[in-house]
Amino acid sequence: MAKEITPRSEDYSQWYNDIVYRAGLADQSAVRGCMVIKPLGYALWENMRNELDRMFRETGHVNAYFPLFVPRSLFEAEEKNAEGFAKECAVVTHYRLKNDPVNKGKLMVDPEARLEEELVVRPTSEALIWNTYRDWIHSYRDLPLLINQWANVVRWEMRTRPFLRTTEFLWQEGHTAHATAAEAIAEAEQMHAVYARFAEEYMAMPVIKGCKTENERFAGAEDTYTIEAIMQDGKALQAGTSHFLGQNFARAFEVKYLSEENREEYVWATSWGVSTRLIGALVMAHSDDDGLILPPRLAPLQVVIVPIPKPSAELEAAANKLMEALRVRNIRCSYDRDEKNRPGFKFAEHELRGVPVRVGIGQRDLEQGVVELARRDTREKFQVPVDAAADRIAGLLEEIQGNLYARALTFREANSHRVDRWEDFERILGERPGFLYAHWDGTTETEEKIKELTKATIRCIPLDAEQEEGQCILTGKPSSRRVLFAKAY
Amino acid sequence: MAKEITPRSEDYSQWYNDIVYRAGLADQSAVRGCMVIKPLGYALWENMRNELDRMFRETGHVNAYFPLFVPRSLFEAEEKNAEGFAKECAVVTHYRLKNDPVNKGKLMVDPEARLEEELVVRPTSEALIWNTYRDWIHSYRDLPLLINQWANVVRWEMRTRPFLRTTEFLWQEGHTAHATAAEAIAEAEQMHAVYARFAEEYMAMPVIKGCKTENERFAGAEDTYTIEAIMQDGKALQAGTSHFLGQNFARAFEVKYLSEENREEYVWATSWGVSTRLIGALVMAHSDDDGLILPPRLAPLQVVIVPIPKPSAELEAAANKLMEALRVRNIRCSYDRDEKNRPGFKFAEHELRGVPVRVGIGQRDLEQGVVELARRDTREKFQVPVDAAADRIAGLLEEIQGNLYARALTFREANSHRVDRWEDFERILGERPGFLYAHWDGTTETEEKIKELTKATIRCIPLDAEQEEGQCILTGKPSSRRVLFAKAY
Repeated sequence: MAKEITPRSEDYSQWYNDIVYRAGLADQSAVRGCMVIKPLGYALWENMRNELDRMFRETGHVNAYFPLFVPRSLFEAEEKNAEGFAKECAVVTHYRLKNDPVNKGKLMVDPEARLEEELVVRPTSEALIWNTYRDWIHSYRDLPLLINQWANVVRWEMRTRPFLRTTEFLWQEGHTAHATAAEAIAEAEQMHAVYARFAEEYMAMPVIKGCKTENERFAGAEDTYTIEAIMQDGKALQAGTSHFLGQNFARAFEVKYLSEENREEYVWATSWGVSTRLIGALVMAHSDDDGLILPPRLAPLQVVIVPIPKPSAELEAAANKLMEALRVRNIRCSYDRDEKNRPGFKFAEHELRGVPVRVGIGQRDLEQGVVELARRDTREKFQVPVDAAADRIAGLLEEIQGNLYARALTFREANSHRVDRWEDFERILGERPGFLYAHWDGTTETEEKIKELTKATIRCIPLDAEQEEGQCILTGKPSSRRVLFAKAY
Repeated sequence: MAKEITPRSEDYSQWYNDIVYRAGLADQSAVRGCMVIKPLGYALWENMRNELDRMFRETGHVNAYFPLFVPRSLFEAEEKNAEGFAKECAVVTHYRLKNDPVNKGKLMVDPEARLEEELVVRPTSEALIWNTYRDWIHSYRDLPLLINQWANVVRWEMRTRPFLRTTEFLWQEGHTAHATAAEAIAEAEQMHAVYARFAEEYMAMPVIKGCKTENERFAGAEDTYTIEAIMQDGKALQAGTSHFLGQNFARAFEVKYLSEENREEYVWATSWGVSTRLIGALVMAHSDDDGLILPPRLAPLQVVIVPIPKPSAELEAAANKLMEALRVRNIRCSYDRDEKNRPGFKFAEHELRGVPVRVGIGQRDLEQGVVELARRDTREKFQVPVDAAADRIAGLLEEIQGNLYARALTFREANSHRVDRWEDFERILGERPGFLYAHWDGTTETEEKIKELTKATIRCIPLDAEQEEGQCILTGKPSSRRVLFAKAY
């Protein structure tokens, strides 16, 4: 198995595709830019969704569902948002096919079934949701309105890659309405913190929290908060964003409320989202040349028990006993009862699919009262008494979770640089890209010039950036804090 | 509140809409035929989804996700399926909008961004999935393939009603592949039984299990199994279908496998689905003129505690203690701490939203160590010792679940008729529609003639129909068993 995966050192991009397809996370589809999410990939998404959903509920949000289609007249109402998405949207123009009179057995669009107003397949739902909120919000008593939606969206991307950038993807989008700007900003910051916590505690992926520059903001936002993670090739990946939308959508859709002081006011908004892109991030943050490495808290299967050298009633009985003890501890486990393949093949297969802990269970070992545990992250193997195995595995899963985070953090630190000279900036990005903290003069012009010269963009202005006098890395103009530059997915 | 709902006796159809909108299950949207599913409606769908998903897993299925779009050439490959859906599908023809040069600030479809091949928004996913299965299935070892998908689908319906018939709806669609016809039929029957069990045990809605006539089958199926429930106006509602697809899709998409005997064979298929339509069924099966009545097993909120006459620290402390005891029993409960409205208003509000049990908690009652319980289904109220309340409520929820089922079953029996004479058939359908068991000569011609004359259709050929010699209700031709006729949603 392992030999079918291109090593990272040879071609990182091909390695990523190999992992995605060979581990069975996704498959290509007949639809341009759209992937099929296979059972392993979807189970991973379900685990992410369940944890995120719990976090959203704990912060007071409820789920709802809004239509897939946005009528063109609503889509264009908020100008910046419309401008940002108009060039990449799928448009429904007809509602019927008919038999093609020329080609028997073929269908064609029925020209008589043209829609009076075209429908855009949602690339994001602000327009449709704020058009609805107008009917839901009348008084300060109706605020805050804290709603989340789990849905599919479509953005007609020219270059696509599985999970990272697909025409259709799955995501959640929170859309909240507030009485004051301060409350809306606090909400956007809260959800930004929720995303960071999810990335770090569940995905074992350290992130830099910051704000986007004006140039990189969400179309229609006043401020965009982002979490940025480093991948193993040193590139950054934007893993989640939370937007303070000001009153832009409230004004576009005339959403007003009567305040406690009996004044009519426009409502303040936020929106925030993460998507199946997180699966791509997870792959690129942790996996190796033998396959997936999944953090135990999200792994669909946490423990697999492999009988050695092959299944038998006695080994299965021992495995069942162990699985019972594991399930009591809420550990997701299974027994590999396949009779056709040898242990070595199975080991490679489970490694490819990223199962965090493998238990080898053999007749001779059992007689001595031991089983063998193997960690996916470090490849260590060791024997433990069978009676202590469940507790040891429970501890091991936490250890692996912690180790993946620590390893990713170490990698990020080793690939983060404070850079003060343009030649260093260019050299580092050319030799071995990473996170570059440098001064910037605050203009979009300079930001774009740097992108043109190096392909690096400002990933964010870190929230925890210290005030520090310095000079713009490109123009030498004065700057008061460093921003994070990187090449990005 | 209650006064805003049209009584069933006055206008059943308006009553249904009133319940849906006033109880906050759904809202109309700006998109023709599409609804917004509001938090209460969506929470109900989540509870349904969770139980169904568990049942699907217990029967060996896994979830995956396939693209929203079906390229026209795939859509048309299975002829009957294509014919069945071509007239009601949304078609994406362009992938970009541009600024309208005539109307400033407006957008228009960019004629230069026309797709070479149109994309149909999936009305169902057989075509796309079987096109994918061709790559996944090679040998008998790859079978059975048991996959389910939770997704949105679009069917361009001319007349829509919230939940019952909407242009976009949420559903699950199972798509399985098997080595033999017998296995595929067993799968279709198994999922049919799962749906029936879900309807009866969770929705408290008795169903008739049967097969569709050829005329009413799913487009592309060899056999369609259905569950049919009676609504309070005597009409039938098809609540879930499971299809034996034969080799139709395997042939259309060239999906073959190598058998154990080393022969190339076409694969056998099933598909099965239920949708947000079930929410409409739930409303129409149980609710009354005061609002929703929800079966406890699916109710998002099972118990609400109302302080009488108004919230106080002491009452909240008592409520918290009770809620703790309820949560230990996995009962979903909340405390109504709204200060603005009086108990009578709150009672009506919780009744409208269908909360199965209301607990009234007052200062004087508490001193005497009692609280008042009120059942939503029978409107009975009684006092119980506060220390016994959690246990009593747990029992009461089961009682209510059972009572709703029994009530619905009694209603169905009272509205089911064995009919042997055409004049009785017409009279009953005219006076008070219900389930009519009558003989039928087995021809599509007669079936359609009956529909034309009475609007009743053959809902199914019940699985448990006894062999019985008789004469067709319309033509007098010989028949060997009764079929179920009804007007239907």
